[in-house]
Amino acid sequence: MACFERLGWPGWKALAEVCEAARQAGLLVIADGKRGDVPVTAKAYGQAMVGTTESPFGTVDGLGADAFTANPLLGEDALEPMVAAAEASGAGVFALVRTSNPGAADVEDLVTPEGPVHERLAVTVDRFADRLAGQETGLSGMGAVVGATAPEHIARLRELMPSAIFLIPGVGAQGGKPEDLGAAFAPGRAAAMIAASRSIAGAEDPAGAAEELRSTVWTISG
Amino acid sequence: MACFERLGWPGWKALAEVCEAARQAGLLVIADGKRGDVPVTAKAYGQAMVGTTESPFGTVDGLGADAFTANPLLGEDALEPMVAAAEASGAGVFALVRTSNPGAADVEDLVTPEGPVHERLAVTVDRFADRLAGQETGLSGMGAVVGATAPEHIARLRELMPSAIFLIPGVGAQGGKPEDLGAAFAPGRAAAMIAASRSIAGAEDPAGAAEELRSTVWTISG
Repeated sequence: MACFERLGWPGWKALAEVCEAARQAGLLVIADGKRGDVPVTAKAYGQAMVGTTESPFGTVDGLGADAFTANPLLGEDALEPMVAAAEASGAGVFALVRTSNPGAADVEDLVTPEGPVHERLAVTVDRFADRLAGQETGLSGMGAVVGATAPEHIARLRELMPSAIFLIPGVGAQGGKPEDLGAAFAPGRAAAMIAASRSIAGAEDPAGAAEELRSTVWTISG
Repeated sequence: MACFERLGWPGWKALAEVCEAARQAGLLVIADGKRGDVPVTAKAYGQAMVGTTESPFGTVDGLGADAFTANPLLGEDALEPMVAAAEASGAGVFALVRTSNPGAADVEDLVTPEGPVHERLAVTVDRFADRLAGQETGLSGMGAVVGATAPEHIARLRELMPSAIFLIPGVGAQGGKPEDLGAAFAPGRAAAMIAASRSIAGAEDPAGAAEELRSTVWTISG
């Protein structure tokens, strides 16, 4: 979303139009804004991503995303209004748990007596995931961002969050390898979505690059 | 910023106009978007807040804020492009260190062998603060968000970040008391800014409420 924001209001208008066009084409829209704020403000972010706002000019629709990403640094009460907004609109939330950038270890891997920070975040995500779990599918509207660049954490995170869908960035340009991600797809557990942008958009043959990634993921997910 | 975002592109347009009007009136603008993302995206957020963007339609100005808030969960390499954007434009950054919401303790107070997470964040902020310190004033363009609702942390955080300006939310509606914040203004150290919104905007006499807070702060800051 940053690449739209830096273009000012015309950028935001374009973002809304891209979301709408994607929906029309039957695609899922994940608004990857990584928002996080104190509860009163987090509620407004939920409205911006998946809700509506009553204004003096009438009801204003948010982006209408199918899901959005959220930053959990501010704790459970700050996640709550965003999760509630998602729940009310049938959308999903992916909370950051272990990101894909090299510096992710600085804070997310800090050791606490009950495990690294990213595992503590996973425990919180799992609590919300239970609440948002579908009765029939066993999948939850509450998911987790788990980067492909530190695959050694994935098996443990899958244990801690059995019903959360994993959104996995870091494949391709950032160096993550799909063949290391098998644990995210452990049998009987929730699924995962592998996000790749630059390695596809920047490929000589983008359709071919996407197809190749899809077939690799298909293999590892059994 | 969430309250503008939820109104879509007209909201973003209004946000830019409010920023511009504030600048014209000689006010400081702090864009409190709490952005945080992997480096390539963090760079774009820096452009959106305080920089410019080269586009096919020409150079597009960002919000032109005097400072903005940033979320440090993703680590030092993710903060770096936002700090660099601030440095290049003579603006400031306030990184979240210990927020003012009740749930802040969930993650920010987790204990690590070298102290709670918020102290680890403070050490990172201090490193950037050294780099952005003004030669003459001793104040730095790198600041920290330190909530008024857990004043027991303030003295230690001031020790860890001697040259960082503290942006202190949580006074008023969230229950923080200005008279507990003296340590933020320790003699010979950097200053602090106390942010109060709802307790002033929602007061029967907003000008009176602002004046009362100002005079209390004036007293404690010696």
